[in-house]
Amino acid sequence: MLTGESFVGYTRSAKGSSVFQTFNPVQNDFLPSHFIEATDEEIDEACILAQEAFLILSQQPFRNRAIFLRKIILEMNVAKVHILECYCLESGLSKDRAAIEFQRTINQIELFTDYIEKGTFLEASIDTGDLNRIPPKPDLRKKMVGIGPVLVFGASNFPLAYSTVGGDTISAFAAGCPVIVKSHPMHAGTGELVAQCVVRAAKSADMPEGIFSNLNGKSFNVGQKLVLHPMIKAVGFTGSHAGGRALFDLASKRKEPIPVFAEMGSVNPIIILPDAILFDRKKWVERIALSVTNDAGQFCTKPGILFVLKTDESRIFVEELKQEIVRKSSVSMLHPDILNRYTKRLDEVSNCLGIAQEIAPSNDDQNEGPNAVSVCGIADFLNAEALHEEVFGPHTIVVECNSQQDVLAGLDKLGGQLTCTLIGSEKEFLIQNEFISVIQQKAGRLIFNGVPTGVEVNASSHHGGPYPATTDSRFTAVGVDAIKRFCRPVVFQNCPNELLPDELKNKNVFKIIRRINGIFKIEDINDER
Amino acid sequence: MLTGESFVGYTRSAKGSSVFQTFNPVQNDFLPSHFIEATDEEIDEACILAQEAFLILSQQPFRNRAIFLRKIILEMNVAKVHILECYCLESGLSKDRAAIEFQRTINQIELFTDYIEKGTFLEASIDTGDLNRIPPKPDLRKKMVGIGPVLVFGASNFPLAYSTVGGDTISAFAAGCPVIVKSHPMHAGTGELVAQCVVRAAKSADMPEGIFSNLNGKSFNVGQKLVLHPMIKAVGFTGSHAGGRALFDLASKRKEPIPVFAEMGSVNPIIILPDAILFDRKKWVERIALSVTNDAGQFCTKPGILFVLKTDESRIFVEELKQEIVRKSSVSMLHPDILNRYTKRLDEVSNCLGIAQEIAPSNDDQNEGPNAVSVCGIADFLNAEALHEEVFGPHTIVVECNSQQDVLAGLDKLGGQLTCTLIGSEKEFLIQNEFISVIQQKAGRLIFNGVPTGVEVNASSHHGGPYPATTDSRFTAVGVDAIKRFCRPVVFQNCPNELLPDELKNKNVFKIIRRINGIFKIEDINDER
Repeated sequence: MLTGESFVGYTRSAKGSSVFQTFNPVQNDFLPSHFIEATDEEIDEACILAQEAFLILSQQPFRNRAIFLRKIILEMNVAKVHILECYCLESGLSKDRAAIEFQRTINQIELFTDYIEKGTFLEASIDTGDLNRIPPKPDLRKKMVGIGPVLVFGASNFPLAYSTVGGDTISAFAAGCPVIVKSHPMHAGTGELVAQCVVRAAKSADMPEGIFSNLNGKSFNVGQKLVLHPMIKAVGFTGSHAGGRALFDLASKRKEPIPVFAEMGSVNPIIILPDAILFDRKKWVERIALSVTNDAGQFCTKPGILFVLKTDESRIFVEELKQEIVRKSSVSMLHPDILNRYTKRLDEVSNCLGIAQEIAPSNDDQNEGPNAVSVCGIADFLNAEALHEEVFGPHTIVVECNSQQDVLAGLDKLGGQLTCTLIGSEKEFLIQNEFISVIQQKAGRLIFNGVPTGVEVNASSHHGGPYPATTDSRFTAVGVDAIKRFCRPVVFQNCPNELLPDELKNKNVFKIIRRINGIFKIEDINDER
Repeated sequence: MLTGESFVGYTRSAKGSSVFQTFNPVQNDFLPSHFIEATDEEIDEACILAQEAFLILSQQPFRNRAIFLRKIILEMNVAKVHILECYCLESGLSKDRAAIEFQRTINQIELFTDYIEKGTFLEASIDTGDLNRIPPKPDLRKKMVGIGPVLVFGASNFPLAYSTVGGDTISAFAAGCPVIVKSHPMHAGTGELVAQCVVRAAKSADMPEGIFSNLNGKSFNVGQKLVLHPMIKAVGFTGSHAGGRALFDLASKRKEPIPVFAEMGSVNPIIILPDAILFDRKKWVERIALSVTNDAGQFCTKPGILFVLKTDESRIFVEELKQEIVRKSSVSMLHPDILNRYTKRLDEVSNCLGIAQEIAPSNDDQNEGPNAVSVCGIADFLNAEALHEEVFGPHTIVVECNSQQDVLAGLDKLGGQLTCTLIGSEKEFLIQNEFISVIQQKAGRLIFNGVPTGVEVNASSHHGGPYPATTDSRFTAVGVDAIKRFCRPVVFQNCPNELLPDELKNKNVFKIIRRINGIFKIEDINDER
């Protein structure tokens, strides 16, 4: 079923001579298909097609995009069995995880579909004119339009929900932007199968060719050429800090700089206050151990640091947590390269002064990432930079603290975060309320008595945070507001009603929410100009 | 009244040894006051104070900011006579212009004051939880918070409305951010007087010291050091492309990159269709000539290129326009440096092939910028890059076109624009509707039968556009949505009601608009968690 070819618009294309294979980490072996790296010519073709499609899309009613997204869901459901099979082979992740991520991807597309139809994302705003004012007040009508072709990099750890047709792609489509996906080389097969669904859906929804391309590439060349292509107007990326920053730097140096939304992970500190351990020790041991080790901890929201306030009970908690994490079965990581980076980081951590590390048994032949816990005191933590950065994998650091001041000093060593979590009683939160103001400066999401993994996707989601969690703290990669990354406003001044885009005409034909002279309403406008 | 000192928070400070003077272009002479360039130490002090103030501000009710802004208006009105006097001396602009810009600045502050009170800018969004869902659905409550201390560069051509307490500063205050102004060296005295008002207002509104500093500087050092200071989280700038791009590059290379909102001007093309000339020739001659020459054309929205479709009448129109522009009195430019750049650009234009240039008489001793018109055919226009970029001053280029295709080819040579204007009859707009889709790709504001100068400031304003008009097409420098540049979202997950910020509590104490489970409403939330 897999051809190894890219999609340049609706056309399968394989002009290159450089090939690569995907890898099954459980069987520790390459998979049979050969993927052909996209050439500079194919990159250029895809970008030109995308720009042409963009101009056509700009003239189409915005609700057409919802029709397109619905067709993607249909096609995905038809291809589901094949997609899941390929997903498991290429990632080593379990069938359960595959099914959950598939459903999350579908739910996400549905959420955006409904949101597009409401038209809220257009942020329609109208200030009517007044010819009698001196000077005459112009009629201004503003709405959001797509920013142009968007480049999306597939994420290694979400072959579905943050790759070919994941959050970045869908939010760009919703904004009215064509998308070129630089398929992730670790799951190029899953990418091809999903791309096939998108192409079928685009054709059947009469979308302009070029609204979507899927380019294969293992070398950096494909991504770099795409970021530098003048037709590309924004970039979505989920991955490492090194990767995200390199793309950001490249995009900033362009003659026309473009925004790069890189979500680069974080350590997601959890602060555990005494009451949590006193009253709910077992529950938190279990929940945190699961959050650290689930799917080999390969999540940008995995809790990487636990600040524990020392009490008599906390010693028991730390002991039980260590046992629970080490007791859980280690599972295969996504790729030997990711396992290598993980074990290298484990070594760096264990080489720090004052670190006691426990590592679970694991099977090298299946590329298992050994579950691990490191424990240290606050003084050693403050001194060791290697402890302040993400360890991508099933590992966490327990930092034993003597006081609130110790925790604050620890937090101060950390850069911007996607999440910060407080676990304790309401009484403790009230007494130690300085934590809330400090973590609010640090993170995009503040969690109370929960764990950071398991990201809810809706209108109030925010998956972002100050640098280096992301390259732009003002935007989210998850939830409907992700559309905002790919929109820019356009205002029409004194435009005759007939020539206005339908969303801004006097008659509110789509019944969307519009801000009229500062008030949100859905009524028509009585305008006698 | 002028001390020449900077304000580092509430304290007047002059630790440096480097001094400069402002200049009166009409008298062609330096003004008496000496301004002391801020030192690295003062820069550091101001940034640290700003960060401290930011943390305090983050804990205060958002409506306190409205109280602060109202007090600024009060103080500005008290100091009005002195401010206007200094403004005219330092800019050479007329008393009328000074009075209009003063009032615009006040109106702008009032607009933001009202907007803050409404609380819409908080974009409060709540998705309530559901414990019975599997897995349990968390309660998510999101709102905007300030991004951190903001650096604002005063603009040479708007000593009030886009400088010390102009749109950038006020929108940053509204967002909850302290501001450090790098005062424009051409009107450092006006800056000092306005800064005095802001400091008085901040004290009387009990704002934390550090919410505002005003630093003098003529060399690039002050601006560069500020952009690179780790406490600074965003930059607002209005000025030249070279200046804006240099700041953007500097900010992008930081360890923690920060957004730079540089509004770098544009050529603001106008397309003039035959009916406009046939039916309203005199009116358009007059309006366009005024828009080109008013205040020596020193506006980022001055129309720099007119595409005219050739007809028998268009020859008369072009002739009359030339006469009208050249007939108007030339006036002093803001500074000899600006005049020099203007005359240099006029030369570059006149050296292009096929250009016929007419230049009005002007008085060198008063630094007058001579009104000027250049006329060429489309073929010569397409070939000469010097014609595609802004000439900052009272000059425009008339490009005579034979067809719609000529105009489209001309537009294609231009980069992103703040505005594009269509002048003609509704019938023509309907027939030539390709123009609308093309200029929508090109610009942030599309004007119908008007001129681009005279920017209306309200909720539907958009003063921005694709690069190189600005460094980020997604944001506006004018109107209340300018706040969005300086905000980032924070979400509270399962936070006990008592600990939530007041704006997100179940009871909607401020009666602000909130998006609750996707619907905009002001009702309280019935939550039985």
